[in-house]
Amino acid sequence: MAFTEFRPLDEKSLIEYIKATPSLSSKLGDKSDDLTIKEVGDGNLNFVYIVIGASGSFVIKQALSYIRCIGESWPLTKERAYFEALALKEHGQLCPDHVPEVYHFDRTMSLIGMRYLEPPHIILRKGLIAGVEYPLLSEHMSEYMAKTLFYTSLLYRTTTVHKRAVAEFCGNAELCRHTEQVVFSDPYKVSQYNHWTSPYLDRDAEAVREDNTLKLEIAELKSKFSERTQALVHGDLHTSSVMVTLDSTQVIDPEFAFYGPMGFDIGAYVGNLILSFFAQEGHADEGNDRMAYKEWILRTIEETWTLFYKKFTALWHQHKDGSGEAYLPEIYNKPELQKLVQEKYMEDLLHDTLGFGAAKMIRRIVGVAHVEDFESIKDDVKRAACERRALEVAKMLLKERRNFRDISGVVSAIRRV
Amino acid sequence: MAFTEFRPLDEKSLIEYIKATPSLSSKLGDKSDDLTIKEVGDGNLNFVYIVIGASGSFVIKQALSYIRCIGESWPLTKERAYFEALALKEHGQLCPDHVPEVYHFDRTMSLIGMRYLEPPHIILRKGLIAGVEYPLLSEHMSEYMAKTLFYTSLLYRTTTVHKRAVAEFCGNAELCRHTEQVVFSDPYKVSQYNHWTSPYLDRDAEAVREDNTLKLEIAELKSKFSERTQALVHGDLHTSSVMVTLDSTQVIDPEFAFYGPMGFDIGAYVGNLILSFFAQEGHADEGNDRMAYKEWILRTIEETWTLFYKKFTALWHQHKDGSGEAYLPEIYNKPELQKLVQEKYMEDLLHDTLGFGAAKMIRRIVGVAHVEDFESIKDDVKRAACERRALEVAKMLLKERRNFRDISGVVSAIRRV
Repeated sequence: MAFTEFRPLDEKSLIEYIKATPSLSSKLGDKSDDLTIKEVGDGNLNFVYIVIGASGSFVIKQALSYIRCIGESWPLTKERAYFEALALKEHGQLCPDHVPEVYHFDRTMSLIGMRYLEPPHIILRKGLIAGVEYPLLSEHMSEYMAKTLFYTSLLYRTTTVHKRAVAEFCGNAELCRHTEQVVFSDPYKVSQYNHWTSPYLDRDAEAVREDNTLKLEIAELKSKFSERTQALVHGDLHTSSVMVTLDSTQVIDPEFAFYGPMGFDIGAYVGNLILSFFAQEGHADEGNDRMAYKEWILRTIEETWTLFYKKFTALWHQHKDGSGEAYLPEIYNKPELQKLVQEKYMEDLLHDTLGFGAAKMIRRIVGVAHVEDFESIKDDVKRAACERRALEVAKMLLKERRNFRDISGVVSAIRRV
Repeated sequence: MAFTEFRPLDEKSLIEYIKATPSLSSKLGDKSDDLTIKEVGDGNLNFVYIVIGASGSFVIKQALSYIRCIGESWPLTKERAYFEALALKEHGQLCPDHVPEVYHFDRTMSLIGMRYLEPPHIILRKGLIAGVEYPLLSEHMSEYMAKTLFYTSLLYRTTTVHKRAVAEFCGNAELCRHTEQVVFSDPYKVSQYNHWTSPYLDRDAEAVREDNTLKLEIAELKSKFSERTQALVHGDLHTSSVMVTLDSTQVIDPEFAFYGPMGFDIGAYVGNLILSFFAQEGHADEGNDRMAYKEWILRTIEETWTLFYKKFTALWHQHKDGSGEAYLPEIYNKPELQKLVQEKYMEDLLHDTLGFGAAKMIRRIVGVAHVEDFESIKDDVKRAACERRALEVAKMLLKERRNFRDISGVVSAIRRV
């Protein structure tokens, strides 16, 4: 049975679908009647089923044509599943250790079948709320970002290959438009979906809407987001797009993928770590003041950038005589010049990272979609205090980002708050 | 007779082609046997025929799959004719007064039929060499650039429309790649096609290849050229892409069109005016020392930017509550804030203009394709002196561009040399 037009699946029709799809049914072993199916889509956008059979398992993710957490009043094309599958495959090829394998994609059904990230994998954000230290996290995330961003940029690719890929992902315009709205626009104006810890942050939210310097900076970042086709970015790389165990790190949900500025990914990830840092005080109790954990988060932020820097520039060095057309070896032909251009490139990337990271922080405090790090703090006063500190740091980073030369200065500034 | 596959036309087969093509033959009147056909492709790339009939005329431009002035050893896709026709139509709709009308396009034949720009239209570059003042030139060129760049940017367009157009023009990758090579790469390395007024400029050419700061700056510009999809740029807007009379200004040859940085067009045009300025001394004779004309060129440079600034920001103001998604009126909601973001935008654009303009100047002195402004100076010593001054100004503009706040400072700097 092939589905010739889109229909949302429920548990019953999902079983029929699996039986009719060899690339899926073959994963489960012979007795395909003996299936466990569980809907776990706690994300904002899609339906997600875990399917476990006698000798195997997978996840089925189906996109609907609206945003699940808001409802049909906020439509969002289900074609995003196509771009998610495309990005999973592309990033998966470049970094198979940290991207789940895709087993099956059905464009008509906006449906992806992929590796089930079995327990004890959990969403990184939940681990951070629980105060768990992940010893390999920085190593893994820096690896993922260095590989996916480097290999899809003009540092590695020819113009011909690059423009072909850019054109393809231009098709994901509606998702980009959504980001433009919720990250770069809504927090800076009155918008029906905006909310914050009221009344405590009323003045803070208003201050964001009244801050000319902030609006000037956010315009520059929005322009970069909309116009700079630097690399194939994940597009939504916050701490709920990462699943972890103590020794595994898997990046999921790249439905917002497009050719955009690298700093948008690195910033999303680092910005969400900073949010987690400021939420810790709300999770402290008598048994655990979270002071040590806060230091671990700061260390993680610093290590993430430092390792990313190291891995990214190592890839650059490794491929400097390769097909990439940005820096031809006949022009950048001396070690001191190579050092000079790399330092410039990486410093610009740090500034982008801080700018986009700050923008992602701000929108999680006064925009439409908040983060569980703060939302799980029950006491409004306490939550507002945490959020305010995060908001102040974000505003500072957005405005002062060009003054930071390295990540240690950033970490010191966060610690000083 | 339809041509089902590509073949290069000669005068004889062109007549057959015209007879078989109503959109062309209808332009010429009844007696289609009474045609005058003249090949005038003095450009670097294509064959161009002027066709004049009893009651009308047109131009036929056919692209071949190599660069005409170099030969079959430098291939260049004839698909460029498709993007040229597309850009002519798009820019023509936005600015019909300064873009020749397209009557016919044949993708199989890589052939465009368009308005014949009748005498006394001449190539602007030739007019500048002859020392002719064009009283409406700044008005017209600023109008063309303001309209074509504004209306194809996110200041006017939605993200959806923008990304669709960006994707389409990604198809012109091979032409972009050509520009990357000849503008941003070849002049900064040893390349078989590079040449200069030797031996006089041997040291100057070498100095360009040894200048780390220059190479750092050119990398930043190349990245902007390759990655920033700001607007539909002409892509090759030098003074031979403009035809003029005293009261008409027509922009032709946008085969390099793509979504790129606005400053690449404005810079190409202004940079070529600066080249013309420095070539004047080589054209001076006893009857005319060209001093007054040099002042006219400087005035033209200043007026071009000033009028562009005025027209572009006027369009922005006019459409500020329109469909453009870059600066939402609910965010940029106060006159002083609007002023602030516009000033920032225009200052950044000036810096891009100076950077790209300088890059275009440098490549015309030590790269593969030179300009008639200098080439027509027969005396090598004299030509080298003119070129050296232009080269020095270009290097200064490329390195110091961020220190200029307005165009009058630029003009003063040029005059000081």
